[in-house]
Amino acid sequence: MEYEKIMDMAKRRGIFWQSAGIYKPVAGFYDYGHIGTLIKRRWENLWREFFLGLGDNYYEIQASVIMPEDVFRASGHLESFLDPVAKCGKCGNVERADHILEDLLKESFEGMAKAELTALIRKHNIKCEKCKGSLGDVEDRNLMFPVSIGTGKDKKSAYLTGETAQGAYVNFKLMFDVLRRRLPMGLAIVGKAFRHEISPRQALIRMREFTQAELQIFFDSDAINKHPRFDEVGSYKLRLHTTKNKSAGVEEMSCHDAVKGLHLPEFYVYHLARVQQFYLDVLAVPEKAFRLRELSAEEKAFYNKYHWDIQLNMESVGGWKEVGGVHYRADHDLKGHGEASGTAMAVNIEGKSVLPHVIEISMGVDRNVYALVELSYREEKERDVLAFPRKVAPFDAGIFPLVNKDGLEEKAREIYEFLRGEGFQVFFDSSGSIGRRYRRIDEVGVPAGITIDYDTLKDNDVTLRDRDSMKQVRVKIKDMPAVLRRFLGGESVSAFGEFIN
Amino acid sequence: MEYEKIMDMAKRRGIFWQSAGIYKPVAGFYDYGHIGTLIKRRWENLWREFFLGLGDNYYEIQASVIMPEDVFRASGHLESFLDPVAKCGKCGNVERADHILEDLLKESFEGMAKAELTALIRKHNIKCEKCKGSLGDVEDRNLMFPVSIGTGKDKKSAYLTGETAQGAYVNFKLMFDVLRRRLPMGLAIVGKAFRHEISPRQALIRMREFTQAELQIFFDSDAINKHPRFDEVGSYKLRLHTTKNKSAGVEEMSCHDAVKGLHLPEFYVYHLARVQQFYLDVLAVPEKAFRLRELSAEEKAFYNKYHWDIQLNMESVGGWKEVGGVHYRADHDLKGHGEASGTAMAVNIEGKSVLPHVIEISMGVDRNVYALVELSYREEKERDVLAFPRKVAPFDAGIFPLVNKDGLEEKAREIYEFLRGEGFQVFFDSSGSIGRRYRRIDEVGVPAGITIDYDTLKDNDVTLRDRDSMKQVRVKIKDMPAVLRRFLGGESVSAFGEFIN
Repeated sequence: MEYEKIMDMAKRRGIFWQSAGIYKPVAGFYDYGHIGTLIKRRWENLWREFFLGLGDNYYEIQASVIMPEDVFRASGHLESFLDPVAKCGKCGNVERADHILEDLLKESFEGMAKAELTALIRKHNIKCEKCKGSLGDVEDRNLMFPVSIGTGKDKKSAYLTGETAQGAYVNFKLMFDVLRRRLPMGLAIVGKAFRHEISPRQALIRMREFTQAELQIFFDSDAINKHPRFDEVGSYKLRLHTTKNKSAGVEEMSCHDAVKGLHLPEFYVYHLARVQQFYLDVLAVPEKAFRLRELSAEEKAFYNKYHWDIQLNMESVGGWKEVGGVHYRADHDLKGHGEASGTAMAVNIEGKSVLPHVIEISMGVDRNVYALVELSYREEKERDVLAFPRKVAPFDAGIFPLVNKDGLEEKAREIYEFLRGEGFQVFFDSSGSIGRRYRRIDEVGVPAGITIDYDTLKDNDVTLRDRDSMKQVRVKIKDMPAVLRRFLGGESVSAFGEFIN
Repeated sequence: MEYEKIMDMAKRRGIFWQSAGIYKPVAGFYDYGHIGTLIKRRWENLWREFFLGLGDNYYEIQASVIMPEDVFRASGHLESFLDPVAKCGKCGNVERADHILEDLLKESFEGMAKAELTALIRKHNIKCEKCKGSLGDVEDRNLMFPVSIGTGKDKKSAYLTGETAQGAYVNFKLMFDVLRRRLPMGLAIVGKAFRHEISPRQALIRMREFTQAELQIFFDSDAINKHPRFDEVGSYKLRLHTTKNKSAGVEEMSCHDAVKGLHLPEFYVYHLARVQQFYLDVLAVPEKAFRLRELSAEEKAFYNKYHWDIQLNMESVGGWKEVGGVHYRADHDLKGHGEASGTAMAVNIEGKSVLPHVIEISMGVDRNVYALVELSYREEKERDVLAFPRKVAPFDAGIFPLVNKDGLEEKAREIYEFLRGEGFQVFFDSSGSIGRRYRRIDEVGVPAGITIDYDTLKDNDVTLRDRDSMKQVRVKIKDMPAVLRRFLGGESVSAFGEFIN
């Protein structure tokens, strides 16, 4: 599927588009329309349900996005949160050096050292894309957005956070006490993060303001080689792309084998498995579009002992793209904040002093929404469908009176209110032919259409139409809540009656 | 209730606290613990359900918090989003002039002109609170946080948004087309906003980074004197504090009388009534703690033709405090953005060109969470209770095995998983005496306790305990989902069986 087609569709269907588009928009900022907002929130809620469900001591918190400089000095963001850039000596245009090379040579140069990037630019004699001037040596540029607070003597330096994770680390000790001092403890944050990208690109894939869903799991590193529920995933096949075997796009390997063959700890592999299950089972991503990619030593942040990216295969943006990662950050963060703040971060677990280690499950929500749109798109003979999994769809059902007269509209409104009252996300549409209204819900991926016709006034039956098969069955109004619940849970419409037409 | 007591309680119970507290924190930033996060999200969901339910063409969208300078020049924020400040000539300390006077004279000076504020400071001979130096004349200070994007020639000025509303205005035209060109149209945004307050104070009441829930209702101003559902609220009594009758704390007045006596349009009064119903009926705020306060001409923004604040009475912060407002912004915003961007904002409604007017229902989410905590607090002989309305409580129920042996813990886990699977927000707690565990859920306002004891193993009954009355009844496990749903809907536990003990 083409990128331009997705962008155009996303705009026309109320999903997403460039922010402040009535003015000269600034690259890297996107707004969500009503359909995009609903999909995004449903994705976030599925994420919460799944990942907070991994432990009985896992909770969500919220942290400020503006935090004082101290936080980011301790975390290493001021020193190490850098992108390599090349500046044009003639026009002054600045571009990301690894992206210039990636565009030309069609491979990833992420994490490559500055000197090597400079050497490659020289070797391929790459010029400024704007004016063809000569590019200078590759330099570092910090990705944090500074914000100044207060005036005069009270002036303080602060930054917009570059990742939600820091909010969990600075609140670790307080939450540990509030949650009654147990490990493992999980702190999740779903919130905004900001990066001063030099060249934002590919819409929701690389933004300057974006939403992350991150879970920090604090645990005793002595327990890293065991997970109490590992048996549940032991023979589960992971879909891996390893550094040793890059030519194989994806290798399948059981969790048991990953522990032995790749020398990964059980506690880490357990979470790789759960992440894969979230994509394949909850989000219904096609197996072949999912893999976990091992990062090389050069690509990883220095504090990440193990780092696998979550990748989805998206044609519109050139193939496999990172939509998240599973990072074993060890004690890097708590140690840094402990030393810089003077707050002891070690905790007492049954008489033993433990400085918890962290496994971070990190996802970019916007990238995931983009992927969902691309991977759900089906072009059929007579229609376009966004075949979102039923649980991620923007609405559960559209309610349609066949015509706007003879009491059908009133009856349909009654059913609309009835289903709203039962907790369903429904919407009402009475304009245009019924065929057109079906097309419209197909286009935004609403899984069910409920039509009220003349027979409904007599027998209180409505037509339930399935988006994917376009099959229809008749259902009693009073049974609709139960039927709709089962349908959204995955059952086929054939379970509810004989097909009509 | 004392402010210090709320702050202490909020911290110990996982509700909220100052951000980045392990470092020297910056005033005006707060983080939410796991309990605060849950309450806040439930408040937001109730807000969505109620206010998006006011129309069948009302939807939520999401906009970037960083927007280009153009947006805020057109909206008037760069010119008019100002606070009056007085600077000390000796030590350079800057304070809000109206707050200095308010602290001394115990009345509000919001909206007073700079010259008058200066005159009052001179008259009362007010000195710098830090060094007793002389204060200079009152000056304006802009409240926007600037952010710079890009480098060199590509550098662009932007700001962190001061209100979510602008995100709805810049997206108006696009959303109008997507939503198939009908009025009224409602665009809601629940998101962050930022104000560079000179003196943040009273915790969640005046913050520099905060969450707003705002609904912009775009409508044809020719229709302002009618609302199709006005009859539903016509005789409903509003609780008003008018500029004409300031000495009466609250006057009760029907919506019909408000239209006639106060010369307010029906379309506006209808929304005042719905806002009051949201507080009294949905959030169960005590009637005497709620009023709608009319702003004087000096206090209103110049573009607001009608402006009533939503106020709650909170002892801890000195009485009546604004937690939101209902603003008739007329065509100020669309006109401004239309002229500045060159995008025509007038729309065609059945052959007529209409530049929509806007009624904005705006609420500060953090302030509302703070109010909920204060207004729900009950100090009883043997316990402290946060008697949150059942729908806003952080969890639906706590699940407790009476003891951790003889299979009771396993049985309790089973019930925990069963209720989670049925969509309830439950949590598990097996530590400490059952009395202590009840106290703990009372303290964070969980409405139901479910206890598994030795009898449960025999007869599959559990004990359901009501937080408020502390009454207990026995209920069959298989009936729990239905019972819990009815209980959360407001029914008394006595509906489900005989009281025990």
